[in-house]
Amino acid sequence: MKFPSKVLENVVDEISGLPGIGRKSAIRLALHILKQPERQGLALGEAIKHLVTDIKYCKECHNFSDADICDICADESRNTKLLCVVEDVRDVIAIENTGKYKGRYLVLGGVISPMEGIGPHQLNIASLEEKLNTREIEELIFALPATMEGDTTAYYLYKKFKHLPIAFTNIARGISVGDELEYADEISLGRSIINRIPYKES
Amino acid sequence: MKFPSKVLENVVDEISGLPGIGRKSAIRLALHILKQPERQGLALGEAIKHLVTDIKYCKECHNFSDADICDICADESRNTKLLCVVEDVRDVIAIENTGKYKGRYLVLGGVISPMEGIGPHQLNIASLEEKLNTREIEELIFALPATMEGDTTAYYLYKKFKHLPIAFTNIARGISVGDELEYADEISLGRSIINRIPYKES
Repeated sequence: MKFPSKVLENVVDEISGLPGIGRKSAIRLALHILKQPERQGLALGEAIKHLVTDIKYCKECHNFSDADICDICADESRNTKLLCVVEDVRDVIAIENTGKYKGRYLVLGGVISPMEGIGPHQLNIASLEEKLNTREIEELIFALPATMEGDTTAYYLYKKFKHLPIAFTNIARGISVGDELEYADEISLGRSIINRIPYKES
Repeated sequence: MKFPSKVLENVVDEISGLPGIGRKSAIRLALHILKQPERQGLALGEAIKHLVTDIKYCKECHNFSDADICDICADESRNTKLLCVVEDVRDVIAIENTGKYKGRYLVLGGVISPMEGIGPHQLNIASLEEKLNTREIEELIFALPATMEGDTTAYYLYKKFKHLPIAFTNIARGISVGDELEYADEISLGRSIINRIPYKES
């Protein structure tokens, strides 16, 4: 692809380095940026630079944070005996949006994936271990992706910490709300039968 | 959606302002940027800012350019009697990639679209008019989108300039190479029959 301008080519190279964005989409995005008022394009560029230079991680849970300790870890009204292990910040946001969880988190920063060369040592497991050994934690909740990597990670953590006097739980998997049974994949449907729960009037 | 960090929220706000990118994709992109080496995120931010501040337009064809006159307009070996009207820079790149056109371009900067409030006066038509009146141009090629807006724009330009001693042509529309007739839409198929051409051994 031959570009009429180095400035355009440069930004297309950079944007198309992002996942899921090809060169044609990158050109489309560049044209969109040029059609907006100049300050919007500058704000976008500045926000990305700030993200890289200014982002901090919570010293407690490894979630993103503007302070040393994030709002969730700093919130004394939350149940400190519940610890929920998640892959990354997106999962914290998703669970917080449900409003159903009032414990704390530990962000692993990934899941064990031999295919991608990610082993336990690249994850925040030392920090998890330190917490389980020194804090009064009653339940460790695995809220990891329903993939082989997520299952492997949960199994690894369970094996490593099962000697501790802690309840280990996994978030329920089964048929999503609104799903028709006939369209559900068979593994989810099978699990939802095996893990059936007593009927409750809701 | 509640964010653990203002820096993250800010970049997600900016990225999700781009077309086709929602807030969840924006978070995914932000996480990707943070996983890369810092200099890559900085280069992306910087490239976007440069795009906004440094991009120039060719004074001849209104394509993007790093100089006053773009490489295509400055190329004396091209046929200056052929002028191809396109909507934007993407079309110039696409046609140049075919290697089949050696004339010049005029980038309109859009197409006439009453729905989006774009009239002839927002397009580079005055510049086209000046060229047609003062340069020795033999053929004006419409390479506009095969949409109602593209057709309207071609019709508008034809009506406006048909008194001039110029040949007006439209790029061929029909069945794309590799298409099965049964899956072609009926308008394209119909046009391809009406505009049939003498069979040539290729």
